[in-house]
Amino acid sequence: MAQENKSAETKQVKKDGWIAYRPEIKLVDCTVRDGGLMNDHAFDDKVIKAVYETCVEAGIDYMELGYKSSKKIYAPDQFGCWKHCDEDDIRRIVADNPTPLKLAVMADAERTDYHEDILPADKSVLDMIRVATYIHQIPEALDMIKDAHDKGYETTVNIMAASTVREKELNDALELLVTSEVRVIYLVDSFGSFYSEQVRSLVDKYLSYAKPAGKEVGIHTHNNQQLAYANTIEALIAGANYLDASLAGLGRGAGNCQMELMLGFLHNPKFKIRPVLKCIQDHIEPMREKLRWGFDIPYMITGNLNQHPRSAMKFMADSSNRKNIVAFFDSMIEEE
Amino acid sequence: MAQENKSAETKQVKKDGWIAYRPEIKLVDCTVRDGGLMNDHAFDDKVIKAVYETCVEAGIDYMELGYKSSKKIYAPDQFGCWKHCDEDDIRRIVADNPTPLKLAVMADAERTDYHEDILPADKSVLDMIRVATYIHQIPEALDMIKDAHDKGYETTVNIMAASTVREKELNDALELLVTSEVRVIYLVDSFGSFYSEQVRSLVDKYLSYAKPAGKEVGIHTHNNQQLAYANTIEALIAGANYLDASLAGLGRGAGNCQMELMLGFLHNPKFKIRPVLKCIQDHIEPMREKLRWGFDIPYMITGNLNQHPRSAMKFMADSSNRKNIVAFFDSMIEEE
Repeated sequence: MAQENKSAETKQVKKDGWIAYRPEIKLVDCTVRDGGLMNDHAFDDKVIKAVYETCVEAGIDYMELGYKSSKKIYAPDQFGCWKHCDEDDIRRIVADNPTPLKLAVMADAERTDYHEDILPADKSVLDMIRVATYIHQIPEALDMIKDAHDKGYETTVNIMAASTVREKELNDALELLVTSEVRVIYLVDSFGSFYSEQVRSLVDKYLSYAKPAGKEVGIHTHNNQQLAYANTIEALIAGANYLDASLAGLGRGAGNCQMELMLGFLHNPKFKIRPVLKCIQDHIEPMREKLRWGFDIPYMITGNLNQHPRSAMKFMADSSNRKNIVAFFDSMIEEE
Repeated sequence: MAQENKSAETKQVKKDGWIAYRPEIKLVDCTVRDGGLMNDHAFDDKVIKAVYETCVEAGIDYMELGYKSSKKIYAPDQFGCWKHCDEDDIRRIVADNPTPLKLAVMADAERTDYHEDILPADKSVLDMIRVATYIHQIPEALDMIKDAHDKGYETTVNIMAASTVREKELNDALELLVTSEVRVIYLVDSFGSFYSEQVRSLVDKYLSYAKPAGKEVGIHTHNNQQLAYANTIEALIAGANYLDASLAGLGRGAGNCQMELMLGFLHNPKFKIRPVLKCIQDHIEPMREKLRWGFDIPYMITGNLNQHPRSAMKFMADSSNRKNIVAFFDSMIEEE
């Protein structure tokens, strides 16, 4: 478990405006977890190790390693080990993690055998369980939060595809979640479809539930409309304190908010950009040709239509047809 | 000169929120002008013709063709013809321009023989002269605006590199410009260094001068920090009505706000995205390998440092070293 390091937080600079910084802000690296959706979680150990060491050097607060997926649903021989994040696999990279970096995994509602597969926190090097839930899975998510909390973990809950959830259901979900043990409630733009005004208004809403209950709000974005970074800043300004980002934006489809952009914006002196650039150069960019994440027009089209990027991912995977963006546009409009 | 087409503007949808639209908004395509900075303005005629026809089909309001640069400073045999935009070259593409699309060129202060090279409007197919000026060239810009206005053109003034101008000088410039004949005053993020809060506050400032004088405000962005589109929306929301964008973002360095993203955001039914996607596929993307515009980490670094992108452009042009982003970062920090 991560060693506490309070020194950076005691030297607070309290002043409004962007010259100062807000020490409560936590950066969560999701390179390996979200990027794993582009290669079935099969990374070389040296990449995972490099991302881990980079997060430590760069002063990033949390690193998300992958999923705690059910081995009954996702057979271990068909995925890389970061689909299941067994304790032995994690320790092979981080040993006992004698660093200030905290480690997290994601647990999907209805796709995780959480009672069995998530160890008590004192037997694990993990610090945080991030429960991912669609709106109709909230009751299971509440049970998963309680399970993780009772085992001794920090917890977050990520309400997926918020752009497709109606106001009434979202309010009901937030009302339930603030009564739970969860520490952070995440606004998740799964389809990369939000504009800044929508992010601002949703973060305001999430905070109106979370703050009175002593909870924090987080933001996780996708770059379909090249707004992942802009919307993360918007959420930060509105008061979100947990910010997801990934090295070179590595993540599903159009990818996530780029860590290197965030580090250019954040002024807490504990954050360092150079190790991030070095890791991108040595380990992340060399994977681009194969993994093919990042902004492209097919992802823009699905984001603009507020749809899951799977059709765009399929289109981009076919190298013979990848440049025919008009055909893709036509196929998406016909589907409507 | 463009034929007036009022029909689209009479069917106004007047309602707040993003479901409606603001009919006053004008889209300015700067693909060929700003993109020309990546190839010394030497485009094939078929590319210019395709962009022109695309602008007409897509309902874009203005197309900027290039510069009216001085032939004494920039020898015609060393540049493509869109560096000088002679009337014959323009008419070879657009004939008498029997369309609603208006045509514009940029004229740089101190680099344009405007008295001689800009014809009276009734002898030209051009509709608008865009005067580009650094803060110390405002007196010359005022003379250029008067010259163009008296010749019968619409005019804009683009105060370049606003991110490096001190508040007092900017206020003085705006005070002078609102007394001129200029129709639109542009906020220009030449280095791609502004955040949304800065854009919002500067558009508010520009509007506070422009509106009482009956003038409009425009926005021109660069994508160094992947905020070109986000900042253009921010300016639009704040009240800017003239929005620059380019096909696939083609423009100097990290490029401009992408037209295809803007067309996904704007809801005026006169705007069409499909012709833009087709032109990108057939004519713009095929130039990417050679022209190398678009977001990349060296451009992010110059934008973050509020510096001209020329060092990043030089770095990106050297194919042997292009991936060594850490070396570039180190060189920029040393320069500081």
